[in-house]
Amino acid sequence: MTDRPTLLRPPYVAVIGDGEAIGPDAHRILAWAEEVGQLLARGGAVVITGGLGGVMRAASRGALLAGGETIGILPGADAAEANEFVRTPIATGLGVARNLVVVTSADTVIAVGGRHGTLSEIGLALRMGRHVVGLSSWRVESDQRFGGPRIHRARGPREAAEVALRLAKDGPVQPA
Amino acid sequence: MTDRPTLLRPPYVAVIGDGEAIGPDAHRILAWAEEVGQLLARGGAVVITGGLGGVMRAASRGALLAGGETIGILPGADAAEANEFVRTPIATGLGVARNLVVVTSADTVIAVGGRHGTLSEIGLALRMGRHVVGLSSWRVESDQRFGGPRIHRARGPREAAEVALRLAKDGPVQPA
Amino acid sequence: MTDRPTLLRPPYVAVIGDGEAIGPDAHRILAWAEEVGQLLARGGAVVITGGLGGVMRAASRGALLAGGETIGILPGADAAEANEFVRTPIATGLGVARNLVVVTSADTVIAVGGRHGTLSEIGLALRMGRHVVGLSSWRVESDQRFGGPRIHRARGPREAAEVALRLAKDGPVQPA
Amino acid sequence: MTDRPTLLRPPYVAVIGDGEAIGPDAHRILAWAEEVGQLLARGGAVVITGGLGGVMRAASRGALLAGGETIGILPGADAAEANEFVRTPIATGLGVARNLVVVTSADTVIAVGGRHGTLSEIGLALRMGRHVVGLSSWRVESDQRFGGPRIHRARGPREAAEVALRLAKDGPVQPA
Repeated sequence: MTDRPTLLRPPYVAVIGDGEAIGPDAHRILAWAEEVGQLLARGGAVVITGGLGGVMRAASRGALLAGGETIGILPGADAAEANEFVRTPIATGLGVARNLVVVTSADTVIAVGGRHGTLSEIGLALRMGRHVVGLSSWRVESDQRFGGPRIHRARGPREAAEVALRLAKDGPVQPA
Repeated sequence: MTDRPTLLRPPYVAVIGDGEAIGPDAHRILAWAEEVGQLLARGGAVVITGGLGGVMRAASRGALLAGGETIGILPGADAAEANEFVRTPIATGLGVARNLVVVTSADTVIAVGGRHGTLSEIGLALRMGRHVVGLSSWRVESDQRFGGPRIHRARGPREAAEVALRLAKDGPVQPA
Repeated sequence: MTDRPTLLRPPYVAVIGDGEAIGPDAHRILAWAEEVGQLLARGGAVVITGGLGGVMRAASRGALLAGGETIGILPGADAAEANEFVRTPIATGLGVARNLVVVTSADTVIAVGGRHGTLSEIGLALRMGRHVVGLSSWRVESDQRFGGPRIHRARGPREAAEVALRLAKDGPVQPA
Repeated sequence: MTDRPTLLRPPYVAVIGDGEAIGPDAHRILAWAEEVGQLLARGGAVVITGGLGGVMRAASRGALLAGGETIGILPGADAAEANEFVRTPIATGLGVARNLVVVTSADTVIAVGGRHGTLSEIGLALRMGRHVVGLSSWRVESDQRFGGPRIHRARGPREAAEVALRLAKDGPVQPA
């Protein structure tokens, strides 16, 4: 990995979460995702998502309506599958393996709620040296303490966006 | 997905974990991985690993010396990178994305210890509908209860192998 | 695949070719790639490349200096590997498998020169239903005539850009 | 890449081709694929295919009935999708990206007929340093002569198997 002492491009932050928010918390999760997207865009970040519905659409909506740039890394081969708030769709044709691209293309990752797909992205993000900020998302613990990236738990969208923007400026860390 | 009412082929069980076991528990983790491999082979299972060192090598060693079949799904492009206990190396050239193949090619997954790469495989396994048996591995929890596959915590190698073999016979479940 | 009757977003055209143009034709190949990038940007297209050197850098340079948008789909995990004319780097971490993303994310593909990596992208593009315009690139023939996408040979950068822009407006075709 | 001076494991040869042989040559293509599989197995090789129908099934059938080992690298997530002559199914969940695994896991590749998916595998094989033997398959030419792996055209199944077995013993070459 090359040094990245100065970030000449804007920070890239991925927002991950369920494509179909369900359950008693669905409304709150989507509202949070939209606010996270809005705050990231105001903070100058490019918002990356998986490009589909639910949390991905809410975060893209928040960012685009705030004047931000939104990238959608789609599992399928057709850019038209992207939700209407994705400005730059990337159709990968990779299926589930696109989860790796969603997190690797970002400097930092925010997880809002989420099911097993989100857990896989959290694991892949840490594996690739990206810090993860969790907002009402998976609690993940190990007996051992590893160096490298960590999961930072945030209490609300404002804290999540602030922590992610700060960590993004530091760039990726050496994976554990 | 097609039905799989009768499993005509042997069960395929992936054993995942650190490629370079370190820390105070390293000796116990490797001994457990080898015993898991041995018990799986005796139970008639094919043992799949990532094909490299540490837990992958220990599990392959246990299985091969017990007369079992061992498959190594390698990240690189050279089959010669496989450890000497892998009978069937599959060089993927995929890098980290090979983690998806390790778990998808298995009916059930056993995680023995492990760092961030192992966490990514646990998430991907659940995403693909594979049950995971954890042995001194990641504790993963969500506020919500999802249907679909689960993480089963085992207290020792014998319990891990038994649970994995039983679950493998049931086949994959609908992902949450 | 969903219908795509109206292309609301700009056409996405991938320019593929050698990362390190060599041989007697190197100078001409790079000049052509830059002119192709320039003409595509003037035609309103987003230019996608693999984000590295050689033809990828030349095409990005042509497009960016003409005021266009440039996306670089990188094989590695570090966005800083992108050449300086890529405005939107997508670090995939996929290695060679990123070749699939380069062509799938585009509506049409232009190959300028190129070695075996370029041939793999031509094959993947056709497999994914994308037309390919070849400029001093691989000649590929089969005994059989298949329906679906085709390789169109162009005599110069202007013809290549014109054909690609026209085909991009028609959208992907059913793969053979 | 590590040295591979002595091949302690059997040669791995991938047989690629159409999953649904059609056209006037379909019968001959399938008969050739089956004979290729048979000859490879008799020559001591493990036969790798994409695990589905058409040429993949014919080659697996030839190899398995001759007492050989057959591996099927499947695009989907369900091992039950493999044809009945695949002894070791590897469900990848990668979709088209599994084409990279089919060729990278082999020492040499034989293409029998084939459409665009086969062309993508030929390109990927050469990119990964694997020689390709073509049997009534794509003719692929470039203005330039590159070092590295080549496409060898065979006139019949016997020549194809012989050339592939000989090249497999030499191991992969440096990609151009």
